[in-house]
Amino acid sequence: MEKEISQAVIRRMPRYYRYLGELLESGIERISSRELSVLMHVTASQIRQDLNNFGGFGQTGYGYNVSFLHDEIGRILGLKNVNDIIVVGVGNLGRAIANYIIAGDEAFSLIGLFDLDKQKKGETVCGIPIMHTDELKDFCTSRKVDIAVLSMPKENAPSVAAELISYGIKGFWNFAHVDIDTPSGVAVENVHLSESLMNLSYEMTGGGV
Amino acid sequence: MEKEISQAVIRRMPRYYRYLGELLESGIERISSRELSVLMHVTASQIRQDLNNFGGFGQTGYGYNVSFLHDEIGRILGLKNVNDIIVVGVGNLGRAIANYIIAGDEAFSLIGLFDLDKQKKGETVCGIPIMHTDELKDFCTSRKVDIAVLSMPKENAPSVAAELISYGIKGFWNFAHVDIDTPSGVAVENVHLSESLMNLSYEMTGGGV
Repeated sequence: MEKEISQAVIRRMPRYYRYLGELLESGIERISSRELSVLMHVTASQIRQDLNNFGGFGQTGYGYNVSFLHDEIGRILGLKNVNDIIVVGVGNLGRAIANYIIAGDEAFSLIGLFDLDKQKKGETVCGIPIMHTDELKDFCTSRKVDIAVLSMPKENAPSVAAELISYGIKGFWNFAHVDIDTPSGVAVENVHLSESLMNLSYEMTGGGV
Repeated sequence: MEKEISQAVIRRMPRYYRYLGELLESGIERISSRELSVLMHVTASQIRQDLNNFGGFGQTGYGYNVSFLHDEIGRILGLKNVNDIIVVGVGNLGRAIANYIIAGDEAFSLIGLFDLDKQKKGETVCGIPIMHTDELKDFCTSRKVDIAVLSMPKENAPSVAAELISYGIKGFWNFAHVDIDTPSGVAVENVHLSESLMNLSYEMTGGGV
């Protein structure tokens, strides 16, 4: 695991992880790169190249051990530790994300919900009571919080992010339609819906020309 | 506009579009690549290279005309036509997306909401009544529908997508946690939340090594 793995390869790993998880659920113990290729609509050669980055998971004539490969990719993606998550902004999107985290991989645990709107305080989502954002400081400084979801209007997102960074939060899953400035050592993953929709629009024009 | 533009450049365009839109709203008429660079945290050289793909928008000593560039990028992204959108699956995520489309760029118009749950029929979201999915056929064959949002559980998404493709829908914005098979000429843009969250987890491990 000493060599540098390209970002492009890394960003394909969650999709492998998803397919391997589904194979595991179906009780499939091993799979060839060719079979995986048919399933994932990726060339077998691409699959071999991608997975070779992580060492010798495949064996000629046997294929890949699904459980081992799923575990290894999970480890590489940091899914062997539990990431404790808070959601800040509990509108429709925040609720959808909260449900998603609760139902999703056990590597992610929802531990708090916060909203700027005092009216929402005490209401529960997935059994977790919504707190007001002025309780963020107490919560974040007394609990381990790994990731904050920013699911609020863009106007508030930069100041909330700055506040959370000051409490030591190291990861942001940002749905607010604005870029968040973070210092080195703090990771941000953006889900900018408008950019995704524009990419679709572009594809539908047949390449824009 | 004859030459091929790389996917990587195209995927950066929505972000330029967003920043230029914000500059326009602030009444800023022109901007240099250097100023844009500071704003967007991208090198000025990258900006010049990206925008040169679309012809000579910039002039030495003047910079870019914000309105012209915004318009051109909008045209390239297919935002000069109105894309009529339906949302299939009106849970929290579907509602969030409906709100987002209503509030967003005028190139996207929400014209219908559908859910598998008959209980939801008649309820309105953003002033639009929810219809049952068995009304999809009548609606899609009598109206222009450009894009369908799939915001439903993964179990139902492939069959609903296949049905919508048979009605001639050419674009899917897919939030269901499954890959959708589409024939040539049908575009899909996936927003796979789990993959995004795993990418964040990976970044937080410091590269997974």
